[in-house]
Amino acid sequence: MANSHRPPRPEQEPAGEIHMICGRNAVEEALRHNNDLDCLWLAKGEHGGPLGRLAAMAVQCGIPVKEVSSQKLDAMSGKAAHQGVVLTLLAHAFATLQDAFELAAQRGEAPFFVLCDGIEDPHNLGAIIRTAECTGVHGVVIPKRRSASLSPAVAKAASGALSYVPVIRVANMAATVDELKKAGVWVYGAHMQGDDYRQPDYSGGCALVIGNEGAGISRLVKEKCDRLVALPMKGKINSLNASVAAGVLLYQIAAQR
Amino acid sequence: MANSHRPPRPEQEPAGEIHMICGRNAVEEALRHNNDLDCLWLAKGEHGGPLGRLAAMAVQCGIPVKEVSSQKLDAMSGKAAHQGVVLTLLAHAFATLQDAFELAAQRGEAPFFVLCDGIEDPHNLGAIIRTAECTGVHGVVIPKRRSASLSPAVAKAASGALSYVPVIRVANMAATVDELKKAGVWVYGAHMQGDDYRQPDYSGGCALVIGNEGAGISRLVKEKCDRLVALPMKGKINSLNASVAAGVLLYQIAAQR
Repeated sequence: MANSHRPPRPEQEPAGEIHMICGRNAVEEALRHNNDLDCLWLAKGEHGGPLGRLAAMAVQCGIPVKEVSSQKLDAMSGKAAHQGVVLTLLAHAFATLQDAFELAAQRGEAPFFVLCDGIEDPHNLGAIIRTAECTGVHGVVIPKRRSASLSPAVAKAASGALSYVPVIRVANMAATVDELKKAGVWVYGAHMQGDDYRQPDYSGGCALVIGNEGAGISRLVKEKCDRLVALPMKGKINSLNASVAAGVLLYQIAAQR
Repeated sequence: MANSHRPPRPEQEPAGEIHMICGRNAVEEALRHNNDLDCLWLAKGEHGGPLGRLAAMAVQCGIPVKEVSSQKLDAMSGKAAHQGVVLTLLAHAFATLQDAFELAAQRGEAPFFVLCDGIEDPHNLGAIIRTAECTGVHGVVIPKRRSASLSPAVAKAASGALSYVPVIRVANMAATVDELKKAGVWVYGAHMQGDDYRQPDYSGGCALVIGNEGAGISRLVKEKCDRLVALPMKGKINSLNASVAAGVLLYQIAAQR
């Protein structure tokens, strides 16, 4: 069982957003039913038996599993008996794609999505959510892994927008692109080798994919995009800040809706 | 003389960009001739005589004067004899408005400026400079006071753009607006009560003013703008991140040039 989950990664501790569940049975229930899972924390070396099974379930749910010292778990859980396992939950209630489609229908608008494919900087993710709210986006999709989570820093940068724009967290961004395409949504990826962003007709259902600050859109998601669009670069450097690029593209799309 | 300069403000220490000059004569020479002044640091309580005169000169130059302990000056200056005064200089070589006009002429383009009227967040200032470079701006103007300085954090967020786009630091932003208008440049201020940003014809000489993250454009500068422009807000929150707003507007302007 020790190989069934990823090794702990040197990520940040969950910041400010911690709701947690301690103990084997409670964690197992939450892994079965909750939609707001953040991370499973296991006592170091305890991979066998029930804890190994929980780790496998967490991997199935698409959340990270981290091994920490038993002392660390004691500190996290306060006086609660953790039995070697703590599950952290996100404070923010995530929406579903269906919620976003319903919001669009309710407003009598074609669906409008932003897919943040690996935005790691909380300032950027927050600013994108803020701009999404201001341009009438019905849903912001973020992946469970390799993304800033909805931390207090993101909430601050989003400047209140988190209360108004549905955020959807998905285990598999490429599968989400497929799902959107099946629903008739055209998916545009921001990519420097794409067509000039002023060319497409963005009316109708539309999703914009913004890639990671350094690596851009992941390969599989990029291949699934209906069209790649680029911002002209008139200077010597060849890329914009991710939230600025998202802003220019979202306003261009919004102007045509 | 004690009243001739502002009281020390709880600002950040200069970060990473410190070139400094110590001692009364050297500082006086630098105040007369240098274009890259950052801040004058005076030993506490020593306002009379020569130090008071240096403080008055610094105020004339439009840079802040800060009173610190003599121990702090010792630490700043290392082994150099500071005689109660240290002048810090900015590592970045600033350009002049004239440099920017010449760059425009050289490229055969109408002049294109961004005026950052009190951007305080280094991420924002850096991202604006980055977007300016990508949209062909000939000069970014920042004020000497109440603005992020060109710190390493700004350089990082600018992602190399600082090497390519001239940055001009001015003591008086309102006077700069007057100067640009005299040179035939139309000055647009980003302001939520302005006209829809898609209305104006931005061809010809053009400057865009972006205001402070919280307070917006300062009153006097706002009054001097030829026209205020706004981004439509389709949601419940009523403003964008400053660098995102700048990005949308700069791309709109660039598209018409």
